[in-house]
Amino acid sequence: MMHENERIDDLELNGLKIIQNKSMFCFGTDAVLLADFVKAGNRARVADLGTGTGILPLLLTAKTKALKITGLEIQEKMCDMARRSVTMNGLEEKVEIIHGDIRSISSVMKAHSYDNVVANPPYMKNNAGFQNRDDSFTIARHEVLCSLEDVIRAGAYLLKFKGSLTMVHRPCRMVDVLFLMRKHGIEPKRLRVVQNRRESQPVLFLVNGVKGANPWLKVEKPLVIKDEEGFYSPEILDIYGKTKE
Amino acid sequence: MMHENERIDDLELNGLKIIQNKSMFCFGTDAVLLADFVKAGNRARVADLGTGTGILPLLLTAKTKALKITGLEIQEKMCDMARRSVTMNGLEEKVEIIHGDIRSISSVMKAHSYDNVVANPPYMKNNAGFQNRDDSFTIARHEVLCSLEDVIRAGAYLLKFKGSLTMVHRPCRMVDVLFLMRKHGIEPKRLRVVQNRRESQPVLFLVNGVKGANPWLKVEKPLVIKDEEGFYSPEILDIYGKTKE
Repeated sequence: MMHENERIDDLELNGLKIIQNKSMFCFGTDAVLLADFVKAGNRARVADLGTGTGILPLLLTAKTKALKITGLEIQEKMCDMARRSVTMNGLEEKVEIIHGDIRSISSVMKAHSYDNVVANPPYMKNNAGFQNRDDSFTIARHEVLCSLEDVIRAGAYLLKFKGSLTMVHRPCRMVDVLFLMRKHGIEPKRLRVVQNRRESQPVLFLVNGVKGANPWLKVEKPLVIKDEEGFYSPEILDIYGKTKE
Repeated sequence: MMHENERIDDLELNGLKIIQNKSMFCFGTDAVLLADFVKAGNRARVADLGTGTGILPLLLTAKTKALKITGLEIQEKMCDMARRSVTMNGLEEKVEIIHGDIRSISSVMKAHSYDNVVANPPYMKNNAGFQNRDDSFTIARHEVLCSLEDVIRAGAYLLKFKGSLTMVHRPCRMVDVLFLMRKHGIEPKRLRVVQNRRESQPVLFLVNGVKGANPWLKVEKPLVIKDEEGFYSPEILDIYGKTKE
């Protein structure tokens, strides 16, 4: 079940465990905050674009009552690791990992058939001159294999009418995300910035857009990670431990 | 100098005073926050789209080292009142109030000749069925005489290359503002939400876009109006009293 350099991490949520490889990209806080921001209905069909280790599908089995969660991943090694995590958690009925390219979404997934799409895309633009364009860190962090627009376009392709796309990104890309969502018919409806402290500038933002909805954005109060004394805020502790009611 | 229903308000900034009419729209906190968010250079030429009582040009004479500030206003009565405020403050050399329509900007103001454009536009969409479509409150608050896109288009027309458009608006319209700025070649570069309290959702946001700039948004820490005890925060007191250094 386990390969070289791999370890099993306990997600401390519904007994979930995940296989990660210390020489490859591992999930971060962003994935946990994103999973919590998703509001998937009962028996929803959910797709995760660029699932990596499969962290989002795993978290969403605990955080939502989704019927089926499909993770799409372009890196064969990551797919294999994610599939073993699914098996290890006994979630083969609920979670499926597909190997494929976001840019050729129509060849691997069916149009207009998902209630929710989630994505934790690469945050940085594709700068020419990367030494290792195919290592998993570069692929996860830089837009070398797909641009932000590729992700949003694929989301629009997958979603049913009134289905939602939920993403996490860096504040410096906020205009890109909001502009491209609207451009592709997904209207941003709910946005929340994430700050390390109450008095600091945002480090991330979460956004939920609805396909075919009318314009009207709800900007929620900032999500603050640490309190005045530097301890995790009650809300963050709640998010880390929270499962579906 | 004064007409029926008018009063003189002290702006408590550089000895500035403004004439307002209690039966017409009067300026609010938004105008003060907007004026403070503007970074106009030495000897800048500034335009204010929909100047109303002329509050922004007056504040900007104290808050910036702008050479010349031009306020454009469609309501004849407001223009007259704004001009009398300019005279009362002895600012005729620096501030000019023009009567005209934002939608016909090219007939009243010169293209590509301003370093900064500011606008505190109507916040609400134009809903059919207003009883008094021509009263000053409706005109200031609802998009009956100009849409958000009209304002941003006019801003793009007026600005020099690398000139900036600074606006204040409600969070529910954030996607509209950011989308339309980019659409018209003004890239949003700096954004700040305004919250009544640290723990409350934003009530306003300030944004600064630069004509012809590359994408990259700096989202600043939230501006909080009142502290835990309900008193004005030090930053707000500072903004209300601050003049150019």
